[in-house]
Amino acid sequence: MASRPPGAAPAAPTRPPVMPQVRFEFGTPDAAERVRMSFARQGAMATIGATLDAVEPGYCAISLVPHDAISQQHGYVHAGIVSTIVDSAGGYAGFSLFPANASVLTVEFKVNLLAPAEGDRIVAEGFVVKPGRTLCITRGEVHAESGGRRRLCALMQQTLMLMHGKDDGDARPPHPTKGRP
Amino acid sequence: MASRPPGAAPAAPTRPPVMPQVRFEFGTPDAAERVRMSFARQGAMATIGATLDAVEPGYCAISLVPHDAISQQHGYVHAGIVSTIVDSAGGYAGFSLFPANASVLTVEFKVNLLAPAEGDRIVAEGFVVKPGRTLCITRGEVHAESGGRRRLCALMQQTLMLMHGKDDGDARPPHPTKGRP
Amino acid sequence: MASRPPGAAPAAPTRPPVMPQVRFEFGTPDAAERVRMSFARQGAMATIGATLDAVEPGYCAISLVPHDAISQQHGYVHAGIVSTIVDSAGGYAGFSLFPANASVLTVEFKVNLLAPAEGDRIVAEGFVVKPGRTLCITRGEVHAESGGRRRLCALMQQTLMLMHGKDDGDARPPHPTKGRP
Amino acid sequence: MASRPPGAAPAAPTRPPVMPQVRFEFGTPDAAERVRMSFARQGAMATIGATLDAVEPGYCAISLVPHDAISQQHGYVHAGIVSTIVDSAGGYAGFSLFPANASVLTVEFKVNLLAPAEGDRIVAEGFVVKPGRTLCITRGEVHAESGGRRRLCALMQQTLMLMHGKDDGDARPPHPTKGRP
Repeated sequence: MASRPPGAAPAAPTRPPVMPQVRFEFGTPDAAERVRMSFARQGAMATIGATLDAVEPGYCAISLVPHDAISQQHGYVHAGIVSTIVDSAGGYAGFSLFPANASVLTVEFKVNLLAPAEGDRIVAEGFVVKPGRTLCITRGEVHAESGGRRRLCALMQQTLMLMHGKDDGDARPPHPTKGRP
Repeated sequence: MASRPPGAAPAAPTRPPVMPQVRFEFGTPDAAERVRMSFARQGAMATIGATLDAVEPGYCAISLVPHDAISQQHGYVHAGIVSTIVDSAGGYAGFSLFPANASVLTVEFKVNLLAPAEGDRIVAEGFVVKPGRTLCITRGEVHAESGGRRRLCALMQQTLMLMHGKDDGDARPPHPTKGRP
Repeated sequence: MASRPPGAAPAAPTRPPVMPQVRFEFGTPDAAERVRMSFARQGAMATIGATLDAVEPGYCAISLVPHDAISQQHGYVHAGIVSTIVDSAGGYAGFSLFPANASVLTVEFKVNLLAPAEGDRIVAEGFVVKPGRTLCITRGEVHAESGGRRRLCALMQQTLMLMHGKDDGDARPPHPTKGRP
Repeated sequence: MASRPPGAAPAAPTRPPVMPQVRFEFGTPDAAERVRMSFARQGAMATIGATLDAVEPGYCAISLVPHDAISQQHGYVHAGIVSTIVDSAGGYAGFSLFPANASVLTVEFKVNLLAPAEGDRIVAEGFVVKPGRTLCITRGEVHAESGGRRRLCALMQQTLMLMHGKDDGDARPPHPTKGRP
């Protein structure tokens, strides 16, 4: 999209913050630790160089530093890799609210790519919008940070499913070393 | 979704507002009037009983009062009608920033339905996230208002296209009466 | 989008049909009748002039004739109205497979608008892609028919939820006349 | 989703193939080669172990063999990695129709995850639905192959943008070795 779009000149603020700030509580006392352990089991996160930066109730931040091994053909971070970290950020935002013995599954997500994912660091944030017993709806944003500036580079909307009775670590043992590059 | 979801108990706020508040300027001096005239040409808005409540730079609100003629099978406002007003709200949020002689087209949108659309009034709001020369990305929210309470009932993400050189009223004359029920 | 796009010239077919044709069975012996009764309870369908054209296992077709009362500002059928019929077509495609005492809810859908919805008739078709106990995934297509020609004007992808233990007609009595325009 | 969903018992076929088979021509004589060269510049494809299996007019197939380095926490291929290959498959399906000196950009995509991505091989296919001068709409499917059986594990809908006047290889030189794990 264009660098000088119509309508982008500064003006007086006219609207309150768009989304009412809902406050959540962790689903279990050890929710942040459960997220960290689950993240550590995601081989894909290590492979693309992603780190888990923050876990709060209904919120998660995951970031990575752009490098050639996760690029698309023009050298930017691949849209799919951007999607990978924002899908995980949304998933763990939801998972942080889940009860014990419930695992998380992405039903679907939709992502708009708004600007090239390049710069010093790419930060994906997931926010729970609507928690539920069966489904959990989240939003996500990805910002490209460069020289202290943040630029929104992707916007996501996601549906998660709670898998009750299936502990997050049940399905398979973690393979912390096998097959990693 | 459940009425008492996990994690929804009150807690201390932990995050700043999620989306940086971008400030926009109208694309033309008469942008609000252009939106109002375009809205008046949408036969669908009159048919479903929608009204244009607010136009600000990069923002638009459209509402309706639930009634049987726009219901789905359980008596709530039909998801498609909810989508219709939030699609228009997002479209006009974008259109408010467009230069003269540019018309607006919805390329695509995605909507999550979060709660039944019922109550005193259903309010759809569209917010521009990223304006551009060719495309414009917006977000939308729909709230159900009942007894002074607001409940988020839908969340949208949308891609618009600017049709340069095609005035909004060009294509066809408005038909303010013909064929209305 | 352009009328003579790149790459659209005729060529030898190179691919088999893209989606494997899954065959389904109705969820109950009276599934088609249940869909017809549910459709009749949707006030919105009557208001926009939509008719239920076909119900088969995992499939539903709903159509309407374009008229000013469902138009957007350029005189075409409003994207939201197009979305309304394809949302319902997808929903009833899924509902046709549901067991007794299960109702249908749209969790989310995403629609691409590909061409102006104009002509003699607009036909929305919903197809079940993946049925499940809790969720059901569908696809949808909307074609504009004009002078015997069909043109794809919208493409949809949708997530439905089965509401077990909630009969489709439970929630509210149908209001066949009250409040209709 | 459930392993024995309602409605999935075999029945007589009731519908013709859902999507009319549109036939396309390559946008340039060397389109397949252009896709292959572009794919080779995507560092992300090598990192996740993806291979380009087929390029036809308006069609592309990309696959990978599941391994721990691209897994999520349960050991399946990460939804984001599944999205990465189907985003690229859709993108190259579109790119195969583009004129010379036009590059491809993903505007947005939406993906439903239908079944665990596990087995011998994961194959993503992209199909152009609607080519245009500015935008190109595609669909995508991902199948998990195991013991000669194919199972649909993801469904995608995508909007691409043609970047006219920007050759695909312009932006940056390929870095075939630097920074790969």
